[in-house]
Amino acid sequence: MSNIHGIIGYTITPFSANGEGLDLPALGQSIDRLIASGVHAIAPLGSTGEGAYLSDSEWDQVAEFSIKHVAKRVPTIVSVSDLTTAKAVRRARFAEAHGADVVMVLPASYWKLTEAEILSHYRAIGESIGVPIMLYNNPATSGTDMSVDLILRIVNAVENVTMVKESTGDIQRMHKLQLLGEGQVPFYNGCNPLALEAFAAGAKGWCTAAPNLIPQLNLDLYEAAMAGDLDRARDLFYRQLPLLDFILRGGLPATIKAGLRQTGLEVGDPRLPVFALSAAGQTQLQTILKTLR
Amino acid sequence: MSNIHGIIGYTITPFSANGEGLDLPALGQSIDRLIASGVHAIAPLGSTGEGAYLSDSEWDQVAEFSIKHVAKRVPTIVSVSDLTTAKAVRRARFAEAHGADVVMVLPASYWKLTEAEILSHYRAIGESIGVPIMLYNNPATSGTDMSVDLILRIVNAVENVTMVKESTGDIQRMHKLQLLGEGQVPFYNGCNPLALEAFAAGAKGWCTAAPNLIPQLNLDLYEAAMAGDLDRARDLFYRQLPLLDFILRGGLPATIKAGLRQTGLEVGDPRLPVFALSAAGQTQLQTILKTLR
Amino acid sequence: MSNIHGIIGYTITPFSANGEGLDLPALGQSIDRLIASGVHAIAPLGSTGEGAYLSDSEWDQVAEFSIKHVAKRVPTIVSVSDLTTAKAVRRARFAEAHGADVVMVLPASYWKLTEAEILSHYRAIGESIGVPIMLYNNPATSGTDMSVDLILRIVNAVENVTMVKESTGDIQRMHKLQLLGEGQVPFYNGCNPLALEAFAAGAKGWCTAAPNLIPQLNLDLYEAAMAGDLDRARDLFYRQLPLLDFILRGGLPATIKAGLRQTGLEVGDPRLPVFALSAAGQTQLQTILKTLR
Amino acid sequence: MSNIHGIIGYTITPFSANGEGLDLPALGQSIDRLIASGVHAIAPLGSTGEGAYLSDSEWDQVAEFSIKHVAKRVPTIVSVSDLTTAKAVRRARFAEAHGADVVMVLPASYWKLTEAEILSHYRAIGESIGVPIMLYNNPATSGTDMSVDLILRIVNAVENVTMVKESTGDIQRMHKLQLLGEGQVPFYNGCNPLALEAFAAGAKGWCTAAPNLIPQLNLDLYEAAMAGDLDRARDLFYRQLPLLDFILRGGLPATIKAGLRQTGLEVGDPRLPVFALSAAGQTQLQTILKTLR
Repeated sequence: MSNIHGIIGYTITPFSANGEGLDLPALGQSIDRLIASGVHAIAPLGSTGEGAYLSDSEWDQVAEFSIKHVAKRVPTIVSVSDLTTAKAVRRARFAEAHGADVVMVLPASYWKLTEAEILSHYRAIGESIGVPIMLYNNPATSGTDMSVDLILRIVNAVENVTMVKESTGDIQRMHKLQLLGEGQVPFYNGCNPLALEAFAAGAKGWCTAAPNLIPQLNLDLYEAAMAGDLDRARDLFYRQLPLLDFILRGGLPATIKAGLRQTGLEVGDPRLPVFALSAAGQTQLQTILKTLR
Repeated sequence: MSNIHGIIGYTITPFSANGEGLDLPALGQSIDRLIASGVHAIAPLGSTGEGAYLSDSEWDQVAEFSIKHVAKRVPTIVSVSDLTTAKAVRRARFAEAHGADVVMVLPASYWKLTEAEILSHYRAIGESIGVPIMLYNNPATSGTDMSVDLILRIVNAVENVTMVKESTGDIQRMHKLQLLGEGQVPFYNGCNPLALEAFAAGAKGWCTAAPNLIPQLNLDLYEAAMAGDLDRARDLFYRQLPLLDFILRGGLPATIKAGLRQTGLEVGDPRLPVFALSAAGQTQLQTILKTLR
Repeated sequence: MSNIHGIIGYTITPFSANGEGLDLPALGQSIDRLIASGVHAIAPLGSTGEGAYLSDSEWDQVAEFSIKHVAKRVPTIVSVSDLTTAKAVRRARFAEAHGADVVMVLPASYWKLTEAEILSHYRAIGESIGVPIMLYNNPATSGTDMSVDLILRIVNAVENVTMVKESTGDIQRMHKLQLLGEGQVPFYNGCNPLALEAFAAGAKGWCTAAPNLIPQLNLDLYEAAMAGDLDRARDLFYRQLPLLDFILRGGLPATIKAGLRQTGLEVGDPRLPVFALSAAGQTQLQTILKTLR
Repeated sequence: MSNIHGIIGYTITPFSANGEGLDLPALGQSIDRLIASGVHAIAPLGSTGEGAYLSDSEWDQVAEFSIKHVAKRVPTIVSVSDLTTAKAVRRARFAEAHGADVVMVLPASYWKLTEAEILSHYRAIGESIGVPIMLYNNPATSGTDMSVDLILRIVNAVENVTMVKESTGDIQRMHKLQLLGEGQVPFYNGCNPLALEAFAAGAKGWCTAAPNLIPQLNLDLYEAAMAGDLDRARDLFYRQLPLLDFILRGGLPATIKAGLRQTGLEVGDPRLPVFALSAAGQTQLQTILKTLR
């Protein structure tokens, strides 16, 4: 079983100036920065990585490049979600074939899915690959909210679904995962402003794009929580909370890309219809970042 | 300006036995049935048509084939929604180039869009084509709920956004469209079990997949409403309501495809993860349909 | 069985200048106005009547006075809702003893009630009186939303629960009442801006405070709907909709009391913490009313 | 300024066998138990105390008796919420006159209140008494959700509103109170299954009925949190969480009263329509309690 833990850094997907092409060298630099800063794992093609906005061929290029560039320095977790089961299976196999350590699956949907359909989707993906799957629950982007009961049913039914990323922001979901899963189902927090409480509740890791901008604060919070030092964890959390709130409110691709640009790494803008961060937002971000350094 | 009105029939997209390929001849037959039954317009590639589950090349084939097959017997309204503005523009141009009379646009999203982003998305599409656009609001599938204020702002700002399809099921939205739009913005109902009240409130048409199964009842309801005959409209509505509820609850692709199969037209199953209608559901559907014929 | 139908006029509860005492003569005048205008029934002590804000002794005075003053010119429907079953039973008996034709019961709650608790509450009240009960569903004020299934279970279990007032504003509830109740459970609309569609769907009456201000328009809408004249009903509805929206948005006690004052009947202000209508609101109301007369 | 902190124990209101009368001696015993167990404050007439279900005279008796019986051994916090401002003012004055250290105010409502109405309600109560007010936000029972912005506006505008009890269960509210209140507005947690995370986020106390049943576990959790010992706090929290979930799900009056009966203190049942705990629930409660002792 994989030992995914700690700060799991999500990468953006850099685009060339006109937003049309990929900028893989910039992606390499952003990965190197994250690893140098000390993150415990790298996760390409997630929400932050605009995975949903890429063509299939672009998706393949980013997946292959990212895995190769990480080069096992830390584990790579590749988001392989897609609207049809067939396409998600294809992506999962592609990721495994190119060396992904873990794949992450959100039950993306257009039509609302029944619980049986969701379970069947995970089973089909699970049976098509050998690497572990991190189940990802995020109704705000997927439109599908999986109850803890359903999640545990999937974990029990599909052998390689071994981890759960919870992004509802509802701490009671983590309590239930802990109690009903009898402490045997590692869960990871995907809601930035819940970082302190998720660790308090026993989360094994924090899936976040924040280390693109403030890696040391993220890592320090994790270390304080692991050391059981509540006062230090609380102080560290409240220090970084304004930034965590800002990137959530402003949208991860827009704010993280703007922040990287401010620190000298040009990664282009998000793809339309998602706007780049406004001038006012850029100023606000600069002010917040200045306080934190 | 286009004069879209009445019963706007949504087509399914038939797949071959294993679910992999398209079955265009069956699509042609389903279109012919709809037109023969008397629908006032044909709308391919909507939610019912599993547009979101097709590859780009499949989408192009279905759009081109549908438009050609309708062959101007009635207007064709093609759904061109896509996650990025660039891709939606491409589809809109493709549809126009192949003869679509109207394109329909849902602000599909992964990241929640701001009102400015939504407006800009419609403007970009509007400026790239000459045919009218039917704006489509359906938060249940798009994740984005457009307020009536925003909708009217878009209608005012983008010249060829001239029609509104409302699928929230909240009749007050139609009241606001009528009052704030001063009766100048034609609206269409996309929520099947609201058909009676939408016509009562002044809807100009009903966007529905139901005429694949019960065209005469749909058309009769429309005629009674246009004739101002409330008692007859109510009777007709309550007669067909069990079927309307059933197809909404069971999912349009699954229920309509099952219903077509029961009437002798094989159109395959929905694409996974969406399940085909269960055996129990098929029996229930048969029972409901028997009562209505 | 009672034959409650048509426009059911809700009365305000007039207070003396400082808001402390009751002004029963003004209440008598407001009742006379409503009856003279042609309403089909009178309903004191509802939401509009600030029943929840009265002491027990005030409640008794208003109930007794209202029933006597109506004096069987039309049926009187008294709201007897209270937080405990014992108090609601007391009020129901009091109302019956003083001549109420019907009592209305909202399952008011502080703690969320289970379905068994709600059913038991209605049963206890039903068994303590002989007159019919109008079950009232309004989650916005009661905090408890009764599903149609639960409502029909109560109707079946408690002999004198024979009518349903639905105020969720969700027309599908009425469809379900009609279909599942097999047309045998008369339902009444309590959501003003749904008046047109509720009649379209088969509502037997409209529970509303609007006839304090625009009785003729309310009555005309009812007559047009009963005559099956959809075009006339629609025209009448859209004419009065701005007023219906206004009183809903501004709160019934504040807006109706302000409107009565504008037409020469002083009935005081709502009880704090509910504010009287602001000066701006009064001007807006005057403008709307002027258009309608 | 008062120094309210730690475990704030909420009392039930014991009723005599038939549910009609008060049982003040049993109330005295339950208070003595709580104080003997070490709670830091006593709070009568809250949600647990069925304050909303008492007559005015009963409310007065319980308030007076509780304050006298606590006799300043610990601070007494009396809930004085009522539907009208006048009645809430009367209760606040009554509580102060009889020696309450703090009064707690929930903006109970029938009609939805505007922000101006809520502020005015708190101002009127604040100006009528000299003791501090704990503002209480609990939309699940009051129907009114006060945003953090509104809460801070009230704290700034009304001098003796100096504490905030937050019961939404949304930890982000506490983060905002901490950040926007610049650490100067003490907040208290009123959502039992959020106890661990509320302390992690900096809550100064925990308002809870749980110490009626498991005081030592509640106190130990508080001590561990104050000592900054996250691992111990987490262990203690997960031990007591099944009980905390149970009393929330089953309703506080029903579950706490059943639990007190199981430990030899007869306090009667809740008032109808609220049911006493079912036989199955009693068995479940006994099992949970056995594990914890």
